[in-house]
Amino acid sequence: MKRVHNFNAGPSALPLSALELARDELLDFEGSGMSILEHSHRGKEYEKVHDETLGLIRSLMAVPETHDILLLQGGAHQQFAQIPMNLLMPGQSADYVLTGGWSERAYEEAKNVGTVRLAATTGVDHGGKTVYRRIPRFDELQLHPEAAYVHITSNNTLFGTQWAAFPETKAPLVIDMSSDIMSRPVDVSKIGLIYAGAQKNVGPSGITIVIIHKDLVQNARKDIPKIFRYSTHAKERSLYNTPPTFAVYLARNVLRWVKELGGLTAIEARNRQKTDVLYAAIDSRPDFYKCPVEQGSRSRMNIVFNLPTPALEDEFVAAAKKKDMVGLKGHRSVGGIRVSTYNAVEPSSIDALVAFMDEFARSKA
Amino acid sequence: MKRVHNFNAGPSALPLSALELARDELLDFEGSGMSILEHSHRGKEYEKVHDETLGLIRSLMAVPETHDILLLQGGAHQQFAQIPMNLLMPGQSADYVLTGGWSERAYEEAKNVGTVRLAATTGVDHGGKTVYRRIPRFDELQLHPEAAYVHITSNNTLFGTQWAAFPETKAPLVIDMSSDIMSRPVDVSKIGLIYAGAQKNVGPSGITIVIIHKDLVQNARKDIPKIFRYSTHAKERSLYNTPPTFAVYLARNVLRWVKELGGLTAIEARNRQKTDVLYAAIDSRPDFYKCPVEQGSRSRMNIVFNLPTPALEDEFVAAAKKKDMVGLKGHRSVGGIRVSTYNAVEPSSIDALVAFMDEFARSKA
Repeated sequence: MKRVHNFNAGPSALPLSALELARDELLDFEGSGMSILEHSHRGKEYEKVHDETLGLIRSLMAVPETHDILLLQGGAHQQFAQIPMNLLMPGQSADYVLTGGWSERAYEEAKNVGTVRLAATTGVDHGGKTVYRRIPRFDELQLHPEAAYVHITSNNTLFGTQWAAFPETKAPLVIDMSSDIMSRPVDVSKIGLIYAGAQKNVGPSGITIVIIHKDLVQNARKDIPKIFRYSTHAKERSLYNTPPTFAVYLARNVLRWVKELGGLTAIEARNRQKTDVLYAAIDSRPDFYKCPVEQGSRSRMNIVFNLPTPALEDEFVAAAKKKDMVGLKGHRSVGGIRVSTYNAVEPSSIDALVAFMDEFARSKA
Repeated sequence: MKRVHNFNAGPSALPLSALELARDELLDFEGSGMSILEHSHRGKEYEKVHDETLGLIRSLMAVPETHDILLLQGGAHQQFAQIPMNLLMPGQSADYVLTGGWSERAYEEAKNVGTVRLAATTGVDHGGKTVYRRIPRFDELQLHPEAAYVHITSNNTLFGTQWAAFPETKAPLVIDMSSDIMSRPVDVSKIGLIYAGAQKNVGPSGITIVIIHKDLVQNARKDIPKIFRYSTHAKERSLYNTPPTFAVYLARNVLRWVKELGGLTAIEARNRQKTDVLYAAIDSRPDFYKCPVEQGSRSRMNIVFNLPTPALEDEFVAAAKKKDMVGLKGHRSVGGIRVSTYNAVEPSSIDALVAFMDEFARSKA
């Protein structure tokens, strides 16, 4: 069996132990004589998996009892619509902070639901395209005193930026954590709503985690379809309709691995160590590798950099692939190199990449 | 490895070959050095799986080029909302035919979106509860001449009824086929929209198939969030946002098995044979087993029946379980026994059940 160094931006690398367990019991889940894929979502076997997953999210992220945890479908894209559908009352507006392609999409979709305001953007023009090189300072945020909520994207996969800390806002803070959930401890008590497609740090695609303050659930709009109300899923423990059972099961396996590693404090230290090594490798050759992101805004999840020319970048990606390092091409809308260093990417993969970067740069000197 | 006789109503039995392939390549998909779960949805490996799945649905169901095939999330429940959001114009109404619990839910959710009409119901009062024992005759349908669409549920899992043929309607026919898609050939050209959660006949939970006439896609409402527009997904080949990649992959494995069996004509013959045996076993002991469904409305997917008392039904379920036959308890809202005979349930499982039914009835004589 071959296993490569997987730097995909999402869906992305999963912990080997999570996959091995899934493989070993794929035809016979815990002696039940059927696959977890074939179990009813109303049966005790699946319910145990469901509850363990919810419990692991609660304990690992220290989610207080003031907040509900929901397991939904449709990814962050569906939340782009579902959040304003639930939280934006007639006559109100919501504040959006733009820091990259995903916050742009969240903002554009919210316009299809209600009234939204641009509270800040760090977008700058770069040859006719909008690019983002940094996270805004808190004093740049122009928040509306009566906003329904303030929306930010904690980590920006396309541009390699990440909020080091979150602003304190009067209105509930809503954070798209799709690409850095579970990568570091956060104080959930200060956040109104966290949402994340699972396919970077938590599991496979097809499952969305929403962590939401119970006040927001209670006060949300009731004049929308029942399936889109957070209250529906909070009340039914995310079993109102058939959940994506295998995705929940695999997320459980991943979260068990996070717990075994020592939880989010240990994961954060591991991610810092991985990315310190990588940024050092980039910064040590400023004539060849260049990270366009401002120092204080650099991501610990997606490290982007450029080589002197696009042709050299293509050559870099191709040569890396020959050494079983895949997923290094930057997003099609921005180009360059992107290294995704999500939780499951092993430090040994980073070491292999750094050695290759050194070798490649020398060969072109 | 133990494998039981799985009569679950959904999620339910999957073909052994589909699971075995998933297991064998779970850590290394086709020599790529990573799991299919870890592949990018923008990479050529996953795209091949995606296209093969779409191609298998098109060829197996003989979907004409007039129709788009979409792979979505959220199950039938989300379609209960998404269909009227897309197809119900202001000032219009839609016709709903009630034949069971799922059509009731579809009807209730549509009321949260627009104006709906009850075109027919076969519900009758039974001790304070509404029960359904049959499919309506075509001449019972009171259709509105200007309806946006007519909604029916082709197979009713709770009550064990199924439409033997579909009515010809002036307005586009919208059919929830969640529990009998791919179980028999249907003339897709005569249907406006087919939708189905995959977790009965096609794959795991977490993926929804929508087959929709291109005219309906074109003329659908544009004043709804982009993620909910059928046109968004039709245009992007269901890759607008990250699809549930593993669920699509597993559906592909299941559909390969359907193709190998000989396609939907062969599957229908196999399902008929299975259910003929089962209904014969019920009807041969009318004093002990009783199917409450009218003859012409009997389902080929979910066979429901009663024993003389609820206590005997509990005993039946418990005794069957000891013989590795599981999932036989009727839906919690209706009681009784329910045998789901979806495509992947092997004829040998039906034979085992029929032998057990004979033995159990004798033991109580």
